[in-house]
Amino acid sequence: MAPLIKTKQTEKIINGISTQVVCTEFSNYIFIVLTQYGKIGTLVSVTPDTRCSDVSAPVITTKVLLGKDEALTHVYAKNVATFVCQEAGNRPVLLGLSLKDCTAENLKTLKEMIKSCQVW
Amino acid sequence: MAPLIKTKQTEKIINGISTQVVCTEFSNYIFIVLTQYGKIGTLVSVTPDTRCSDVSAPVITTKVLLGKDEALTHVYAKNVATFVCQEAGNRPVLLGLSLKDCTAENLKTLKEMIKSCQVW
Repeated sequence: MAPLIKTKQTEKIINGISTQVVCTEFSNYIFIVLTQYGKIGTLVSVTPDTRCSDVSAPVITTKVLLGKDEALTHVYAKNVATFVCQEAGNRPVLLGLSLKDCTAENLKTLKEMIKSCQVW
Repeated sequence: MAPLIKTKQTEKIINGISTQVVCTEFSNYIFIVLTQYGKIGTLVSVTPDTRCSDVSAPVITTKVLLGKDEALTHVYAKNVATFVCQEAGNRPVLLGLSLKDCTAENLKTLKEMIKSCQVW
């Protein structure tokens, strides 16, 4: 029997650090964990505003559910997950972030890793 | 390359309702979703009190992170996930509950399904 809940994962060494990405599809959320510690880390919900129909500039709300609530976390979460919300038909993303190295350069690599684990 | 983040899932028909269980191991959390809708549903953290060393009667704290905060949810989460915390070396559980049918009888079946998806 094929699993009903799609899940994919990948691993890559980024600047010498082993990095895991896990993506799981639920009907109301895409669950994504980006981790360099094997942890779930800071858990953030990334929710597109359904009242807003302008896809080119979606309004995205981020909320830290678990862990330290830092400004950078919101910025990073929004940057890394907004494209998933859009591609997944405006579905929210539940995102676990546990990264040693949050740079703009890594962001591109992480987004490529997420794309390679597309479950939506 | 073997996936570093262990994940297992199972499906069972309980009283005519298709029920999925997904378990994923992170170093700081066991992530478990019990769903009859394909949704993550209500997200609850189930945390054992680390100050308490009495394994026979652990103190467990539950907190609703996403969704409706109802008394029954806390009771159900505690009942379904406490044994995982204990077996996983006092690790907390991040639990998604999306059940049509929350009865004491189903609890037993759900716990058996979780056991069959042991990732810890």
